[in-house]
Amino acid sequence: MPLPIYVLNGPNLNLLGEREPHIYGYETLADVERRCGRTAAALGLEVRCRQTNHEGKLIEWVHEARKAGDGIVINPAGYSFTSVGLLDALKAFEKPKIEVHLANIHKREPYYHNSRISQTATAVIAGLGPFGYECALQAISRLLPD
Amino acid sequence: MPLPIYVLNGPNLNLLGEREPHIYGYETLADVERRCGRTAAALGLEVRCRQTNHEGKLIEWVHEARKAGDGIVINPAGYSFTSVGLLDALKAFEKPKIEVHLANIHKREPYYHNSRISQTATAVIAGLGPFGYECALQAISRLLPD
Amino acid sequence: MPLPIYVLNGPNLNLLGEREPHIYGYETLADVERRCGRTAAALGLEVRCRQTNHEGKLIEWVHEARKAGDGIVINPAGYSFTSVGLLDALKAFEKPKIEVHLANIHKREPYYHNSRISQTATAVIAGLGPFGYECALQAISRLLPD
Amino acid sequence: MPLPIYVLNGPNLNLLGEREPHIYGYETLADVERRCGRTAAALGLEVRCRQTNHEGKLIEWVHEARKAGDGIVINPAGYSFTSVGLLDALKAFEKPKIEVHLANIHKREPYYHNSRISQTATAVIAGLGPFGYECALQAISRLLPD
Amino acid sequence: MPLPIYVLNGPNLNLLGEREPHIYGYETLADVERRCGRTAAALGLEVRCRQTNHEGKLIEWVHEARKAGDGIVINPAGYSFTSVGLLDALKAFEKPKIEVHLANIHKREPYYHNSRISQTATAVIAGLGPFGYECALQAISRLLPD
Amino acid sequence: MPLPIYVLNGPNLNLLGEREPHIYGYETLADVERRCGRTAAALGLEVRCRQTNHEGKLIEWVHEARKAGDGIVINPAGYSFTSVGLLDALKAFEKPKIEVHLANIHKREPYYHNSRISQTATAVIAGLGPFGYECALQAISRLLPD
Amino acid sequence: MPLPIYVLNGPNLNLLGEREPHIYGYETLADVERRCGRTAAALGLEVRCRQTNHEGKLIEWVHEARKAGDGIVINPAGYSFTSVGLLDALKAFEKPKIEVHLANIHKREPYYHNSRISQTATAVIAGLGPFGYECALQAISRLLPD
Amino acid sequence: MPLPIYVLNGPNLNLLGEREPHIYGYETLADVERRCGRTAAALGLEVRCRQTNHEGKLIEWVHEARKAGDGIVINPAGYSFTSVGLLDALKAFEKPKIEVHLANIHKREPYYHNSRISQTATAVIAGLGPFGYECALQAISRLLPD
Amino acid sequence: MPLPIYVLNGPNLNLLGEREPHIYGYETLADVERRCGRTAAALGLEVRCRQTNHEGKLIEWVHEARKAGDGIVINPAGYSFTSVGLLDALKAFEKPKIEVHLANIHKREPYYHNSRISQTATAVIAGLGPFGYECALQAISRLLPD
Amino acid sequence: MPLPIYVLNGPNLNLLGEREPHIYGYETLADVERRCGRTAAALGLEVRCRQTNHEGKLIEWVHEARKAGDGIVINPAGYSFTSVGLLDALKAFEKPKIEVHLANIHKREPYYHNSRISQTATAVIAGLGPFGYECALQAISRLLPD
Amino acid sequence: MPLPIYVLNGPNLNLLGEREPHIYGYETLADVERRCGRTAAALGLEVRCRQTNHEGKLIEWVHEARKAGDGIVINPAGYSFTSVGLLDALKAFEKPKIEVHLANIHKREPYYHNSRISQTATAVIAGLGPFGYECALQAISRLLPD
Amino acid sequence: MPLPIYVLNGPNLNLLGEREPHIYGYETLADVERRCGRTAAALGLEVRCRQTNHEGKLIEWVHEARKAGDGIVINPAGYSFTSVGLLDALKAFEKPKIEVHLANIHKREPYYHNSRISQTATAVIAGLGPFGYECALQAISRLLPD
Repeated sequence: MPLPIYVLNGPNLNLLGEREPHIYGYETLADVERRCGRTAAALGLEVRCRQTNHEGKLIEWVHEARKAGDGIVINPAGYSFTSVGLLDALKAFEKPKIEVHLANIHKREPYYHNSRISQTATAVIAGLGPFGYECALQAISRLLPD
Repeated sequence: MPLPIYVLNGPNLNLLGEREPHIYGYETLADVERRCGRTAAALGLEVRCRQTNHEGKLIEWVHEARKAGDGIVINPAGYSFTSVGLLDALKAFEKPKIEVHLANIHKREPYYHNSRISQTATAVIAGLGPFGYECALQAISRLLPD
Repeated sequence: MPLPIYVLNGPNLNLLGEREPHIYGYETLADVERRCGRTAAALGLEVRCRQTNHEGKLIEWVHEARKAGDGIVINPAGYSFTSVGLLDALKAFEKPKIEVHLANIHKREPYYHNSRISQTATAVIAGLGPFGYECALQAISRLLPD
Repeated sequence: MPLPIYVLNGPNLNLLGEREPHIYGYETLADVERRCGRTAAALGLEVRCRQTNHEGKLIEWVHEARKAGDGIVINPAGYSFTSVGLLDALKAFEKPKIEVHLANIHKREPYYHNSRISQTATAVIAGLGPFGYECALQAISRLLPD
Repeated sequence: MPLPIYVLNGPNLNLLGEREPHIYGYETLADVERRCGRTAAALGLEVRCRQTNHEGKLIEWVHEARKAGDGIVINPAGYSFTSVGLLDALKAFEKPKIEVHLANIHKREPYYHNSRISQTATAVIAGLGPFGYECALQAISRLLPD
Repeated sequence: MPLPIYVLNGPNLNLLGEREPHIYGYETLADVERRCGRTAAALGLEVRCRQTNHEGKLIEWVHEARKAGDGIVINPAGYSFTSVGLLDALKAFEKPKIEVHLANIHKREPYYHNSRISQTATAVIAGLGPFGYECALQAISRLLPD
Repeated sequence: MPLPIYVLNGPNLNLLGEREPHIYGYETLADVERRCGRTAAALGLEVRCRQTNHEGKLIEWVHEARKAGDGIVINPAGYSFTSVGLLDALKAFEKPKIEVHLANIHKREPYYHNSRISQTATAVIAGLGPFGYECALQAISRLLPD
Repeated sequence: MPLPIYVLNGPNLNLLGEREPHIYGYETLADVERRCGRTAAALGLEVRCRQTNHEGKLIEWVHEARKAGDGIVINPAGYSFTSVGLLDALKAFEKPKIEVHLANIHKREPYYHNSRISQTATAVIAGLGPFGYECALQAISRLLPD
Repeated sequence: MPLPIYVLNGPNLNLLGEREPHIYGYETLADVERRCGRTAAALGLEVRCRQTNHEGKLIEWVHEARKAGDGIVINPAGYSFTSVGLLDALKAFEKPKIEVHLANIHKREPYYHNSRISQTATAVIAGLGPFGYECALQAISRLLPD
Repeated sequence: MPLPIYVLNGPNLNLLGEREPHIYGYETLADVERRCGRTAAALGLEVRCRQTNHEGKLIEWVHEARKAGDGIVINPAGYSFTSVGLLDALKAFEKPKIEVHLANIHKREPYYHNSRISQTATAVIAGLGPFGYECALQAISRLLPD
Repeated sequence: MPLPIYVLNGPNLNLLGEREPHIYGYETLADVERRCGRTAAALGLEVRCRQTNHEGKLIEWVHEARKAGDGIVINPAGYSFTSVGLLDALKAFEKPKIEVHLANIHKREPYYHNSRISQTATAVIAGLGPFGYECALQAISRLLPD
Repeated sequence: MPLPIYVLNGPNLNLLGEREPHIYGYETLADVERRCGRTAAALGLEVRCRQTNHEGKLIEWVHEARKAGDGIVINPAGYSFTSVGLLDALKAFEKPKIEVHLANIHKREPYYHNSRISQTATAVIAGLGPFGYECALQAISRLLPD
């Protein structure tokens, strides 16, 4: 039986549903995590959902997932564009790892266009809102060895 | 009842399954289009699948979809990175339009990193292989008005 | 008696009047071509109006005009910013050639600011809407040898 | 009855007809201004023609035109490429304002390619020689409210 | 007793209260200068308020202030971003010199982001509206030797 | 009665008074915070002063201030130039938020010239030393609704 | 016996001998193709010569050559500098492929300096005029397996 | 007798020996720290070894070392390339501070080429693997006052 | 007999001898002009010395010199680096024109490194202090037709 | 009878056949020079083959060839990308001069992409291995006057 | 028994101890070479120390070391930042090669920040003064096969 | 009595009078050196004139001049734009050192615009032809201590 999939959310995502809803939508983080739980269950998977505003914490959860997880769905938010440390951590994670952004980052200001994390992610999904997490889980489910 | 969803593939995608399978996988374009048909049917949707190596043809199919379609799933391949004409055509398409890339373009050579099309796409999915088209169809299905 | 003036329109201009009218106005391409015909007639000139979404086609019409035309009024739209092939074709056209843009491209997104075609055009008119074509025809009329 | 149209010429244009005639032509500034007067009269308009080599003076004439004019035709010459002050002044002018260059600036040295003024001008005409001023006046005439 | 503080305003600031009030506010330049006078008086200081649209004039007033002033509050407006001459003049002014911008220039178009003058200013205040001048005067008051 | 104003200081500011006093002055952080308290009291305001070296902590305090504060005075120090996460947090703060730097960052090394935070700050004050915090509090006091 | 070598010419090369002969020489495309035929025959090879102004057509001929050819000599002209689609097509061609330019592109305007196609070509020959095609054929002849 | 030397390791170095051993080698962090202890002892020095994934923590340990240490050996890993906060902290440390990288960062991807920390480090050692730490300790030993 | 040589000095040079003497030396502008007079007399030439802080004025003196002078020695100071208008004026001056800078501008801040004026000057002399003007006059004397 | 053709090889080419044979092949420099001799003889030409690792020596041989040679085939190796001195020497050589690179430099690291020498070479051949020298000799043979 | 280690010093290092001692220290090159001899002897190694101001000479010594040496310690000084020829030579040296700089080049002017040689060096040591050569020899000693 | 002044000429200057005389004039290097001798004699100075095409040789002559000369007049030609080694050598020369270029390098191709040597030269003279060397000697004569 597979290990859980880590669903990691980065800075400011605790404000989901409150902050700039014209960009990020009206669902809260709890809603999104519940969605992930339901989708995972339907796929026979388990999720471990976490959110932090700390770069170091995200790095540590990626380390933890190397031992205890079979995949990562990550929305690194603001750290996507700046963190070499998180990029290094994810490079060391050798199972499926999918980067998700709620909004289509390529339509926003230029400093949101180039995610460093995309250089190591298995795949990138941007602009599907909370449904992007579900796609990511479906994709990981297909990438897991039988 | 909704109009069909256009599934448009750009240059070289007719070689799918033959060209650089370590990057693009072993499914042919016909396989991918069959997948799209099945997924769409399950969602109560119809697809219209087309491939061309001509920029002008892609532009014209986008024009056609303005009248005859309810959404676009597009993999513009090489034109993603160069075509302002296709960008302009898609800007004039006001329903859901999702850009799909089989490979994660951000892991490839730098000239594949910045898709111009992403500036107008509703969402972008890269790196999920043929399953990316299915996610795109699912997402469009959710974006259609009831 | 002079040869006709080619009035060439590039990609997406077939949508004129429908697409983003706050930028491009409400006249259709047929309206604009009729205007050109009337203005030309008043100047004792004939026009040959064409539109295509294909870069190669635009190039070929420029080739045709080398033999059969006395001037070119061209709105290369999206190809203005990318096509070296069209630039090369126009370099080989040695009579008056005027580039027209309906909108003032310098007020739009940065990727519309630098037309490659302007490097070889006799003159550039941007932002006058359909009247720009009329100015271009008037100007060519003055540039023709008596 | 409309207020006059300001026809403003920037630095070195007092040398017109003398300086580099292979680029700028053989008409003097007085010739050009007479042309503008004739064209305006034919359109039922009045022009107020001025030339200065001082950036501050151009700014002040734009301020004056806010009160006393119904449109501006401006050839800012060298200040096109450097003056944020003139750009700011023209931003505050809310009626038609058309930028004219005698030569096609895009065919010249790179430091003539990007006019700052074009960011706020209603339209830009470059390369039509003195006839460009006439086009500009015709265009303003059409843009004036009846 | 200290020499007066020069309050120098650059191009277009004579339009204050009229031009783009959503950016610059509704107070006129005369209002702002009166404010400065009142604030200065409360601090036991005198101000000398001037406005010009000419780069050379601003330079000359800075020269004058070297002899006749104990500090400069300057809003160079458009010249902030372009004038090396004004930068040189201010470098030669060795007493407190504070750059003020009514709007937060860093939120505006990119060509407003990098003030050359900031390289020599004692301090920079941007975005406080007319109150920024008052802060600048208070700060100069504290920087004057007892 | 208004909610407190958050006075947030970023990395290394706990060394104030010790580190590079020729740049940052001899007052300690405690001195600066006492100043802020006094100034606030004089304005009928309350301050909540905090310092951290952790990017995530700054982000969280900004989140807290959304609920519990009426304004933010923030000196993000080193994070000014790198943190997209903090920028995102401040974008979600819709009341007055003023960025303060003790030194004039524009006179220092190039990597201190472009604060990302300035893109969302209401105003920016740089180079006034600890008095900058007082100006910021005065400004917020004026921006609060009566 | 080897399959034929494809000799593919891109946009504007149909004008050879007419267009800018000081750069491209006086031979027509037919002359060049005859040369290629003679040289190939002398090497025991067959050529298939084609010219198009359409990017999509060039791509399709490269696809055709994957099945039906043993080598490609290609002068992509204007598409050299812009086409990612053609680059992708040639990447998928795994036999010898030599890029030829009549003129030395490095001596011309900067936008002719960096051919994208050179990134995948086996070799590049520029500036030898029509003789370059002959060198390319000789080289392919040597690269073919015995 | 000298104060201890701080040996500080940044993000992901806790994975040493596990992560990408072809780049970083097979020794664990504990091994490296033991090496440092032995080398230091042989030099009559004491080390204080620490690792963290948190930027803020690294900053705080540098602050601590200002009081309690006589030198710093630091491998800031991913923060080398992004952290202005850590750079600022190290600028305020006035004793020997040596930056160590296990791999030669200049041979890796471009985003590893320019360490910000190198601007303030006394010296930089890259590519010597764990032996680099020993060199750094030897060097600090020579730089300490007798 | 030759027409006089114009010796034109730009912004801030009226401060010569007072401003930053470690860079510009202790001679006043009057001293420098007297030197020029003496050197010219020794060469059988006459000089016309002028200084202004206004870009427009420099442009007009260059225009005047086209009629009334046989050469120009110009130190455009801050306008060297910014003025396209002055560059245009000097382009239209077809006799010897030598650019002089007191200091070696290439040793100063980067924004002093690239003089626009050097693109049209006959020669450039930087770093010889007031003696540079004398060299310039000697050189012009040699360049004058006998 | 023509003067000899200089075949000049730059730094490290003495290692040919030993250094990185997967890039440069297995022939030694002596082999390549023998090839050149044979090809030249067949064309009725003589070659003078030389190799040096010194930039100054290459420059001097180009000078010598101005007097004693009728053409140059040059592989400047590492100096291609850096030497303005060699570029200047070749500019002064007015007969045919062909630049040869064994490998296709455009497929290698970016610092091998832009040869300065290509700006003055008659033609450039890259990627044909030693056969490139033969093509160059054939081409020179055709370029020599009869 | 191992072959000697080449200790190669580039341009201007013959001035060591005389030139800018605040940057490079007071030891002469002879002192440094003696140090290297002593350190090598202690490690059971032999050194061959050389200095040249000629790029070509450095290249040739690297070639020599391919045959006659077991490692290289090189301080290429000014050629570090410019020489592709030396980079190529070192790429062809397949044993340990360590780049040493006396000063920390990253703290100096920007043109000293990016050593081309670092792309091929096994390791880089900068800022340890003459002791850096000793570290390099120790490191090579460890890298040699037993 | 002063030591001699070194007059150093770099690559290709041995061709003076032959190479591109429209740029460099018709005097030979011997002519120029004789001029220098005469001018020096008139100033009571001695010159030591040398030319080389080798970067390393130029560096060594600068070293020699540190001991045996009182000034340097140097035209580094092609090495001006590339040589960090020569820049370093000249930095270590603490007496007057004047850079001379025969042509005005700022009017030529962009790669001649930025001389690295200018960063350390006392002064720069460009465009005065051989007379530039005379000015340089006059200037050095004035800079020598009495």
